[in-house]
Amino acid sequence: MHVPLTVRDFLDRAELVYGERVGLVDEPDQPATSWGSITYRELARRARGFAAGLDALGIEKGERVAIVAHNGARFVAALYGTCISGRVLVPINFRLHAHEVAYIVAHSGARVLLVDPELDGALGELPVEHRFVLGASTDETLFGSPRAPAAVEIAENELATLNYTSGTTARPKGVRLTHRNLWMNATTFGWHAGVSDRDRFLHVVPLFHCNGWGMPFALAAMGATQVLLRKASGAEVLRRVEAHGITFLGGAPAVVSGVLDAQRSRAGHAPGHGTTRILVAGAPPPTSLIERVESELGWEIIQLYGLTETSPLITINRRRAEFDALSPAERAAKLGRAGAPVIGTRMRIDEHGEVLARANVVMDGYWNDRAATDAAIVDGWFHTGDGGSMDEGGYLSISDRKKDVIITGGENVSSIEVEDCLMAHAGVAEAAVIGVPDANWGESVKALVVLRPGSATSESVLIEHCRARLAHYKCPKSVEFRDALARTATGKLQKFVLRAPYWTGRTRQVN
Amino acid sequence: MHVPLTVRDFLDRAELVYGERVGLVDEPDQPATSWGSITYRELARRARGFAAGLDALGIEKGERVAIVAHNGARFVAALYGTCISGRVLVPINFRLHAHEVAYIVAHSGARVLLVDPELDGALGELPVEHRFVLGASTDETLFGSPRAPAAVEIAENELATLNYTSGTTARPKGVRLTHRNLWMNATTFGWHAGVSDRDRFLHVVPLFHCNGWGMPFALAAMGATQVLLRKASGAEVLRRVEAHGITFLGGAPAVVSGVLDAQRSRAGHAPGHGTTRILVAGAPPPTSLIERVESELGWEIIQLYGLTETSPLITINRRRAEFDALSPAERAAKLGRAGAPVIGTRMRIDEHGEVLARANVVMDGYWNDRAATDAAIVDGWFHTGDGGSMDEGGYLSISDRKKDVIITGGENVSSIEVEDCLMAHAGVAEAAVIGVPDANWGESVKALVVLRPGSATSESVLIEHCRARLAHYKCPKSVEFRDALARTATGKLQKFVLRAPYWTGRTRQVN
Repeated sequence: MHVPLTVRDFLDRAELVYGERVGLVDEPDQPATSWGSITYRELARRARGFAAGLDALGIEKGERVAIVAHNGARFVAALYGTCISGRVLVPINFRLHAHEVAYIVAHSGARVLLVDPELDGALGELPVEHRFVLGASTDETLFGSPRAPAAVEIAENELATLNYTSGTTARPKGVRLTHRNLWMNATTFGWHAGVSDRDRFLHVVPLFHCNGWGMPFALAAMGATQVLLRKASGAEVLRRVEAHGITFLGGAPAVVSGVLDAQRSRAGHAPGHGTTRILVAGAPPPTSLIERVESELGWEIIQLYGLTETSPLITINRRRAEFDALSPAERAAKLGRAGAPVIGTRMRIDEHGEVLARANVVMDGYWNDRAATDAAIVDGWFHTGDGGSMDEGGYLSISDRKKDVIITGGENVSSIEVEDCLMAHAGVAEAAVIGVPDANWGESVKALVVLRPGSATSESVLIEHCRARLAHYKCPKSVEFRDALARTATGKLQKFVLRAPYWTGRTRQVN
Repeated sequence: MHVPLTVRDFLDRAELVYGERVGLVDEPDQPATSWGSITYRELARRARGFAAGLDALGIEKGERVAIVAHNGARFVAALYGTCISGRVLVPINFRLHAHEVAYIVAHSGARVLLVDPELDGALGELPVEHRFVLGASTDETLFGSPRAPAAVEIAENELATLNYTSGTTARPKGVRLTHRNLWMNATTFGWHAGVSDRDRFLHVVPLFHCNGWGMPFALAAMGATQVLLRKASGAEVLRRVEAHGITFLGGAPAVVSGVLDAQRSRAGHAPGHGTTRILVAGAPPPTSLIERVESELGWEIIQLYGLTETSPLITINRRRAEFDALSPAERAAKLGRAGAPVIGTRMRIDEHGEVLARANVVMDGYWNDRAATDAAIVDGWFHTGDGGSMDEGGYLSISDRKKDVIITGGENVSSIEVEDCLMAHAGVAEAAVIGVPDANWGESVKALVVLRPGSATSESVLIEHCRARLAHYKCPKSVEFRDALARTATGKLQKFVLRAPYWTGRTRQVN
């Protein structure tokens, strides 16, 4: 028997089996509009209300509904309400400028736009037919609709969401994710990460990012309670973990770093010590950070690797029995790799050192961009654009964004390796390593560093620190100190932004 | 991107990520032919050897390979070798008589038959082109083939196995299970049961039964070690759990009962106390047995429900947080239900009280039996043939094999409920409750009971025991004592066998 794999499965099971459980705990920071705690039955009711509201607006199956919002219960209800009724959600990065949002709204052809009240003013006019500010008024017109939505059949290869990539290239591209893509991602993720009905999850990662890495689906299937966090800070994350008995959360390395710093100013064990696991993705975490999560928080750290184009999960690195006998540093080195392919995913490194993936989580293609699709998916393999290597056990290590590899004097340098080394210095809070033009070597290695408060480390000390640990050709020739480093919304260093000033007037950013 | 879901995924991941781990621990009882412990890499090598061996025999894609064997490493290797190369495995119940095996071999059209050395003599002549006795000679001709098998593409809706149902009806029917069926079963099972790379599993359930409930696939995906057990006894199960650090096993209620009895003659905690979980399926476990597993073994008991036709997993009942505060007896009552639908499965009870299921784990149909297929799958719903009810949370309770419901004086009696009551009596080891013809009431309730050694309980005591606990119309009118009860290989009571003597000369077995 063939039954279409759709994201309805996740919400339907939550409603049937865990209907009385608290499904969502909305952010309390905005008490006037917060939904507070709602059950999975109530979430399903509001999602159906939303679908009926779209019916009333005349939004057809396959049409797009865009959302620009911080994490919140309405985001989850809109995600479900759109997808279960055959429409396509377009989640937009809330850190984009108004003109970038306008581009995505126009490019996706969205007829409906949902906007966070806090973001509405800055966005100005936008090219969309129906615009709603999330809050009490949408509850009346959309989420609270008492009508049943129209029945609709959905095939598993039809679109569920259209996710725009977060802009390391000139124009964002729309990633077409099907119901089958999302189903496979949620299920294989849920299995590998051990999502269970005893989990209580904290949504730290913005939901616009690959639909919150697929969490709203996997968690609903098992009836796990989802706590929404609007704005992440290390101290706030720790407070929520304690207040809600959180067993499971995710974040980019920068978020994890903030949590570690917050814990240093607390007494005693971290909340969740010995019971909580944290997923790290979006950028490779430094090994020093992995060690600290184990020793200072007592949390299990799980690394994931993937891209918006892969729904996102393609590799996972979780502590396995073979790592138990290792020293903390050795174990951190093992866990610092991106991980091994998850079930159903095949990966290989091509002759250029690029990481390729073949799996049911790979997107259907880019929206209205045949040329980009054909460049990304060749002979059944998706080209990640990342450079990497694979060691025994199929464990992938990402050496760099392919275009970010530094080639100096004919030698390839992994900027991540050098960043990792710098991060191991006690005075360094953040580090980015880039290639800058060099008359002798093509490119030379430059480090941009944010120091910890109170640190007075110098350029020469950091260079010596690296030279004591790495081949000399890999070490920075120069170090510049900064107050902050440009990052994407999800914590990835924006290397092209950091590199740009050094390459002014050139047609390429690599030599 | 669409990539066919095939069972290759499971073995491929085991070989890549857990290649150096012990994948299989073969049964040591037959040291002359046991493979001992082999890694997942070695298992994959032998599975490919087997596929190459089939190439050499000229077995085409889609052709059938039958096996009649006790649990062993060669069974797992043959299962994989057959399926990964596009052939179809026909696992046959090793408790069948020679003429029944001959029927299945002929009906399936198998060109190859693999036979356990211990069973070979009794099977006599069989209508098959290539017959092999599993052992050293098959290692030379099949599993040890050094050649690479021919490349073959497999679509996810193509057959992987053909499983004959274990004979509660006149003739066994061949259940067509596709790669997609098995993939979905293994993955949703793996997630719900929490199969992880730290598991060590004991194969107690015969592998012929729905491919060992899908275990060889789910366990391989996570690199979990699989220990093969040829013949189950309670004492032997406990020895293996201790010797191999087993964290996970499965069995029919009769097996679990044997383990409990064996533990009573041991001192101290059971091996695996506090760490091991046991899956029970094949028949509803009495609530007294569930309580005893928790209290006397310290194992988590997980109930599954499904049929060969559903790959088999469709519902699961696992202790959830809501059950923690209950008394052991209340909790056992909750866990005594068949469970809630797993992710992706929809279930309902039709107007006749029959349990229906709609899911991707439902078979493609019966082999060469269009009429039976059309009777079983109607308007997209599979008819289980079981009677049941569903309470809040979607939890299914199986009241009986639909045809086994006893109707006495116009009242429906669930034989399971009466059996459960009888099993709660200290003197009762096994109980079967059937309807027998009755001039006044249509049918009357009769109990067939196996007493515990040393018990001298009488018919009148047992009837009074029931009358003290159940509505009087449900209680046995008569009790007969037996040495054993007819069961299928997987522990289901064969009610039609037990009923037969009482219905001689009648055209129906219900009134």
